[in-house]
Amino acid sequence: MLDAKSLFNAHLKYVVPKLEDEEFDEVYEHFKIVKRKKGDFLAQVGGPMLFDYWVVEGCIKAYFINRKGNEYIVQFAIEDWWVSDYNAFFNKIPSTYFIECLEDCTLLAITLEDREKVCKNHHKMEYFWRYKLTNGYIAVQKRILTLLKDSAEVRYKKFIENYSKLLQRLPRKYIASYLGMSRETLSRLHRPSRSRGEEE
Amino acid sequence: MLDAKSLFNAHLKYVVPKLEDEEFDEVYEHFKIVKRKKGDFLAQVGGPMLFDYWVVEGCIKAYFINRKGNEYIVQFAIEDWWVSDYNAFFNKIPSTYFIECLEDCTLLAITLEDREKVCKNHHKMEYFWRYKLTNGYIAVQKRILTLLKDSAEVRYKKFIENYSKLLQRLPRKYIASYLGMSRETLSRLHRPSRSRGEEE
Repeated sequence: MLDAKSLFNAHLKYVVPKLEDEEFDEVYEHFKIVKRKKGDFLAQVGGPMLFDYWVVEGCIKAYFINRKGNEYIVQFAIEDWWVSDYNAFFNKIPSTYFIECLEDCTLLAITLEDREKVCKNHHKMEYFWRYKLTNGYIAVQKRILTLLKDSAEVRYKKFIENYSKLLQRLPRKYIASYLGMSRETLSRLHRPSRSRGEEE
Repeated sequence: MLDAKSLFNAHLKYVVPKLEDEEFDEVYEHFKIVKRKKGDFLAQVGGPMLFDYWVVEGCIKAYFINRKGNEYIVQFAIEDWWVSDYNAFFNKIPSTYFIECLEDCTLLAITLEDREKVCKNHHKMEYFWRYKLTNGYIAVQKRILTLLKDSAEVRYKKFIENYSKLLQRLPRKYIASYLGMSRETLSRLHRPSRSRGEEE
C-alpha cells in the first residue's frame, strides 16, 4: 500500500530540504486523504472548488466543453502533481471546468483556509507554494507561446520531451486535444517513419 | 515628479497592509530606479534577463517574432504591473522574447538574488509574491481558456472589461496580436454599430 505521508514528505522536502519532521507533521494534519474512482469528478462546471489536490496515485484531466460539444483540455495531473481550478479555488467562485479522474485516484486535499493558515504559520511552506506557483506560471506561459508559435510537430516533440510519462498513460485523443491539434495530425506525427521538418 | 518610493509602498501595502515602514525601507533598498526611452529594450531574444521590473510609469510590450516575421504579444505592462521573462529570469537562461518600451519608462528593478533574499528575510514579502503569482497564474490560465474557446467578439469584450486602461493607450494592431485575431477582425468588432452576438 502507498504511504501517502512519506511520499508527500519527500515531495515537500525536494523544495524545502530544511523542513523539520515536527513542522511536516503540523503541515500534514491539514490535509485529508481522499479516494476517488475512475470517472469521478473533483470539480464540475458551476460547482464549488473546495480543495487543492495533490495526486498520490492516479491520473486526472481538467477540461471544459464548449457549446458545440468540443472538449478542450486545460491540464493533466499524475502522481506528484497538484490540480485544482485555481480561479474558483482562490476566489471562491463556481468552477469553470471539469476535473475528472481517468483512473482510480488517491489524493491529498486541503481547503483554502487551511492552505493559507499553513502558509502563515510556516514561512517554509509559503516559500514552497511560491516556488510551485513560479514553475506553474512559467509552464503555462510556455504553453501559450507554443500554442501561438510552434508547428504541430514541434508542439508534439516538446510534449514528448517534457511529459513522456503522460504519453504512455493517456488516450491519444486527449493528447491531441491538449496540444490543440486533430487526432489525425497527431497520428501522422506519431508514426516514427515520417519525414522530419514538415510543418502544419 | 513621480515619487516611485511612495507609489511602490502603496503597491505593497495593498497586498500586505501590515508591512511596517522600517520593513518597507529594507525591502526598497534592494530595488534600483531605471529610466528607459521609448524603443529601448528590457530584454532581447537570446540575451540575459537580469531583472524583475515593476512599472512606475510607462507602457511596455513583451513579444516574440516567428520565422515568418509574425509578431506575437505575450504580455503588456503599464503602471503598477510587473514584467519580466520569468523563465529566463528564474532559471538564468537566455530570454525567449523581446521586452520593449512603448513609451518613456520609469521602472523599479530587482535581481533574482535580491528578490530571493527579500523573500527569505521578510515572510510578508514571500506572501506578497505568492499572492501576485497566484493572480498571474490565474490570469494566464484564463488567457489559454479564452484563446481556445471564445469567439473573437467574446475575447475582445473580455479584454475591454479587464483592461480598459490599455485600450486607450495601445495601437489597435497590438491589441489584435494579443487577442490572436487579425486587425481587420478587431476593426469590425470595434465599430459600435455592429450587430451583437455574431461569432467568428
